[in-house]
Amino acid sequence: METGADPDLASLLVANQAFYTAFETRDLDAMSALWERSARVTCTHPGWATLRGWPHVQASFFALFGGASALQFVLTEAEAHVHGDTGWVTVDEDLLGDQHGATVAALNLFTRDASGRWRMVAHHGSPVNGPPPRIVRRDL
Amino acid sequence: METGADPDLASLLVANQAFYTAFETRDLDAMSALWERSARVTCTHPGWATLRGWPHVQASFFALFGGASALQFVLTEAEAHVHGDTGWVTVDEDLLGDQHGATVAALNLFTRDASGRWRMVAHHGSPVNGPPPRIVRRDL
Repeated sequence: METGADPDLASLLVANQAFYTAFETRDLDAMSALWERSARVTCTHPGWATLRGWPHVQASFFALFGGASALQFVLTEAEAHVHGDTGWVTVDEDLLGDQHGATVAALNLFTRDASGRWRMVAHHGSPVNGPPPRIVRRDL
Repeated sequence: METGADPDLASLLVANQAFYTAFETRDLDAMSALWERSARVTCTHPGWATLRGWPHVQASFFALFGGASALQFVLTEAEAHVHGDTGWVTVDEDLLGDQHGATVAALNLFTRDASGRWRMVAHHGSPVNGPPPRIVRRDL
């Protein structure tokens, strides 16, 4: 996406990319460094119930990174927004490899910590079933 | 959930409840009043691609509210968090009626407008497939 010269949006997109890089490289240290380590963080993997609190979120990545095959993502439609010290990114994750062709719609939420660094506080991914429904706008 | 005497959390949960009340009563005016009417809003209905921008989001509710049967929700596991002028709620939507037994995991994001009122900027709902996966924590 176009971020122009906005340093807030640019840094937010860097943090968002770091999430997917850690995911692809199965780097639990990098993933852990990205998240806020608190009770309020939540993570909803596609089809899963929401995991609440850093210990459960971390455990999910530990389990996923131990799976048979690593995931690879092509990210499209990324849009970043900043409101004060909170930022969020909506993005489509197009999966490669074993799950080739699957698309996950994601909403990633970050807050800035005391040092000004973006830390993830929520990740919500959901499977996209086919193309977007066609909605006919009538007399709105 | 327990909000104690925190007026920020209490008002955020009121806004979150207003979303589900508008959904259940198919009240497009109430739904429209709740959302920020901007290009940055996004809405991901369960299984759908992400809809971007208020016209598309509004059209989706117009279409959903014209469906054969209204949805009813029992909300559980609601957790609200406020960071500056941004607030978010994670909640499980347990569906009644035709879709009895289905659970949707939701992340609802709000920002405060100039008058201090919470306006929804993102809704992301995803189907939960069965109980949460059992994750065995080993040597984290």
